[in-house]
Amino acid sequence: MKTLSVNRLGWKLLEKLCENPDFYGVKVQKADSGTTIVDAGIKAKGGLQAGRIITEICMGGCGKARITSKKYGKLELPSIFVSTDHPTIATLGSQYAGWQINEEGYFAIGSGPARALALKPKEIYKEIGYKDDFDKAIVVLETAKFPPATLLERLVDDCKVLHKNLAVILTPTTSVAGAVQVSGRILETGIHKLRKLGLNPNTILYAWGCAPIPPIHPKFGDAMARTNDAILYGGVAYYAVEYEDEDELQRIVKNAPSSASKDYGKPFIEIFKEASYDFYRIDPNLFAPAIVIVNNTRTGTTFQCGKIDAEALAKSFGVSAN
Amino acid sequence: MKTLSVNRLGWKLLEKLCENPDFYGVKVQKADSGTTIVDAGIKAKGGLQAGRIITEICMGGCGKARITSKKYGKLELPSIFVSTDHPTIATLGSQYAGWQINEEGYFAIGSGPARALALKPKEIYKEIGYKDDFDKAIVVLETAKFPPATLLERLVDDCKVLHKNLAVILTPTTSVAGAVQVSGRILETGIHKLRKLGLNPNTILYAWGCAPIPPIHPKFGDAMARTNDAILYGGVAYYAVEYEDEDELQRIVKNAPSSASKDYGKPFIEIFKEASYDFYRIDPNLFAPAIVIVNNTRTGTTFQCGKIDAEALAKSFGVSAN
Amino acid sequence: MKTLSVNRLGWKLLEKLCENPDFYGVKVQKADSGTTIVDAGIKAKGGLQAGRIITEICMGGCGKARITSKKYGKLELPSIFVSTDHPTIATLGSQYAGWQINEEGYFAIGSGPARALALKPKEIYKEIGYKDDFDKAIVVLETAKFPPATLLERLVDDCKVLHKNLAVILTPTTSVAGAVQVSGRILETGIHKLRKLGLNPNTILYAWGCAPIPPIHPKFGDAMARTNDAILYGGVAYYAVEYEDEDELQRIVKNAPSSASKDYGKPFIEIFKEASYDFYRIDPNLFAPAIVIVNNTRTGTTFQCGKIDAEALAKSFGVSAN
Repeated sequence: MKTLSVNRLGWKLLEKLCENPDFYGVKVQKADSGTTIVDAGIKAKGGLQAGRIITEICMGGCGKARITSKKYGKLELPSIFVSTDHPTIATLGSQYAGWQINEEGYFAIGSGPARALALKPKEIYKEIGYKDDFDKAIVVLETAKFPPATLLERLVDDCKVLHKNLAVILTPTTSVAGAVQVSGRILETGIHKLRKLGLNPNTILYAWGCAPIPPIHPKFGDAMARTNDAILYGGVAYYAVEYEDEDELQRIVKNAPSSASKDYGKPFIEIFKEASYDFYRIDPNLFAPAIVIVNNTRTGTTFQCGKIDAEALAKSFGVSAN
Repeated sequence: MKTLSVNRLGWKLLEKLCENPDFYGVKVQKADSGTTIVDAGIKAKGGLQAGRIITEICMGGCGKARITSKKYGKLELPSIFVSTDHPTIATLGSQYAGWQINEEGYFAIGSGPARALALKPKEIYKEIGYKDDFDKAIVVLETAKFPPATLLERLVDDCKVLHKNLAVILTPTTSVAGAVQVSGRILETGIHKLRKLGLNPNTILYAWGCAPIPPIHPKFGDAMARTNDAILYGGVAYYAVEYEDEDELQRIVKNAPSSASKDYGKPFIEIFKEASYDFYRIDPNLFAPAIVIVNNTRTGTTFQCGKIDAEALAKSFGVSAN
Repeated sequence: MKTLSVNRLGWKLLEKLCENPDFYGVKVQKADSGTTIVDAGIKAKGGLQAGRIITEICMGGCGKARITSKKYGKLELPSIFVSTDHPTIATLGSQYAGWQINEEGYFAIGSGPARALALKPKEIYKEIGYKDDFDKAIVVLETAKFPPATLLERLVDDCKVLHKNLAVILTPTTSVAGAVQVSGRILETGIHKLRKLGLNPNTILYAWGCAPIPPIHPKFGDAMARTNDAILYGGVAYYAVEYEDEDELQRIVKNAPSSASKDYGKPFIEIFKEASYDFYRIDPNLFAPAIVIVNNTRTGTTFQCGKIDAEALAKSFGVSAN
């Protein structure tokens, strides 16, 4: 078996995206340095299909994403379904937005396969025992601005690739592609929470999940809040793990869904306001799927905890249904 | 960004269809003129997969279609899920059955990408500011008869393509492929209704929808009635629009679903009979999805109106569930 | 129309599987004889995607399979959705586990396209009027052991292919890929039951179905029991048939779902125990989907019988939801 390379698998998807810019609604351009820049929602329109393939690129080509529809109480919402047979590499090793970028006043959060070359952050790659080895790199930036040349320099240095072998994908939070790819982080969000509660992520063998894609809001703050609520009140994450201590596993799963947080129940924008717009004052237990399901492959048992809250979704998403 | 060509994108799908006739259950033949004729349900058997790819061809390759299952009350029905990031071009510019064909006593309704070359009808292409420019053309005919040579002559003239670059796909209403591709018109039906109510279709940015695929009925009239009921009582259509006047938008959406019509509630075959089998005597407000959902990307608000009527579906579809 | 070759269509899928062993989590090796051996869950990890493509291979490339999620009462379970426009060939002609293999103490049940070359069992191929003619063969074995060289000899003899043109896929019942491909037999199970009740399988024109993928259990007996319960208590199968005698068809459909059996209601592991672990003492009427839906294309009528039993699923699958 060849070793899984998140940049190799992701690059194949990137080629598909770049060969059909009209279908995907993206603008592909070359920076002066030779780097490929894919605009998926700044000047370009982007869309559901761009969001779908960018989600798969974020997962380093190690999972599948699909746009579907789902009922949440009375609401019918577009939703994203993701699955992976390499959950740790796909999420912690690639999709996780764990690369804080601050270059000459340009702030952005980097995610995607390139992280597995630059090892950002190093401790995660040590924990999961993975790093990539490939001559091409893809970074996904959740941003509404084009990156400066100095940032591209830093990225090729960190990833040790040539400029022409670097691709940067830009997805604003207020765009459809941006909303899709954030909802597509449902499994990553659940794995972070489980890890925080003490579960070794290397015990996770397979995973699938789904989450609603929030309706578009033109303001960044509201759009960001909706992507959080999509996961907190509408997301379902399912993991197959190989776990020794079943009692401990049950305790972990019980505390895994968002409803285990004291802040649970209100739209995220209110929680954020009450925390004076300071992420660090929000109960970190909140950031989790609405429903977490864990199957212990050692014993055959499955624990399902949490629930969908359609009313909170309707309130957050500004949906009036009648 | 290349300009979107519905015939170019559709032709790629056509090639896939023609390269796997055994899988898709279609018969591909050349007319004496050199035109490609794809029989998807006359002498050929067709099927769900043929219906799926023909739906994507009808949408000019600008959208995705997928066969899935959905629950409608107690009923479990095969359904088609469609999405597009180019809703106006995919539906009004291509999928819309807007080409009335009457050639030497051969009547058929033409739809698909070729319309964007022949500009049928011209006013729609003017309204949406789109026309295609490509050397190949695909017409989809909802018919149970093979087209005469004179019609093929007319089509190449209207589309300004060579005979060998014309493809005609035939889907009878009573066939599975025919039923699938009509249910696949859920977004088109909703856009027509919204447009009729005063919404400028160019404000529609993204769309997705789903509708049940009606069980097969061997008689044309019943089969046609079921395809209508699939949309009227089972269809869901979701649009993201950029709209200035939110109050007006709310009024439009309120009147958009089929339930806004006075004829709503009975199986279409009864409505048709009461109208003495004259389409023009049926309330035109009836032709609409059961549920219409509109997200205004200017304000972030979403309006959802209408409801699924599982009993009307069961009655129309002749389903006895116990 | 080319004649449908289940080995030709299946081989294309096999190539896709073998070209991406890291993505699919499979180990592909050559036996000394030159035969391709694909391990999808013995030493290899396998997964949902391997299970999905192996399901399509089992159906001889004549159908589509997709991993999705579905609600069963309070449970959210990964599920497989399958559809085919060639139901008899895909199921009886290929997917059916009808090849009893017992070679030098190596026991396994063979399924997949190779059966249509070896004609195992001959009476089925006579009944459906189909056999394949292709120079390559694929066998799927539900087993946790690698096959001995003598078995490979026997397979090439029976299929009349060269060793290098034979591929054997191995899926243990306790693996994810194994669980997926067994749930993927929902349509096959329903067709067997309908046939047993007197329905001529050649009247079946189109089919789709879905079934939950059971959570993994490490013990063979429990894993096997869960795959049965997935179908019996969670499976839905839909068939379009062309049937002369509608009253007879209604009687058949009424007796088709698993609930028509006297053993219905208990987890399969209990039923198996009560039968002293002897399959032949279990009521054969039990082996059927939870819901069977049949559309008669001659009359347009549809009969839906049976029901999903979420409690039995939760009990069998060892799911505690709260």
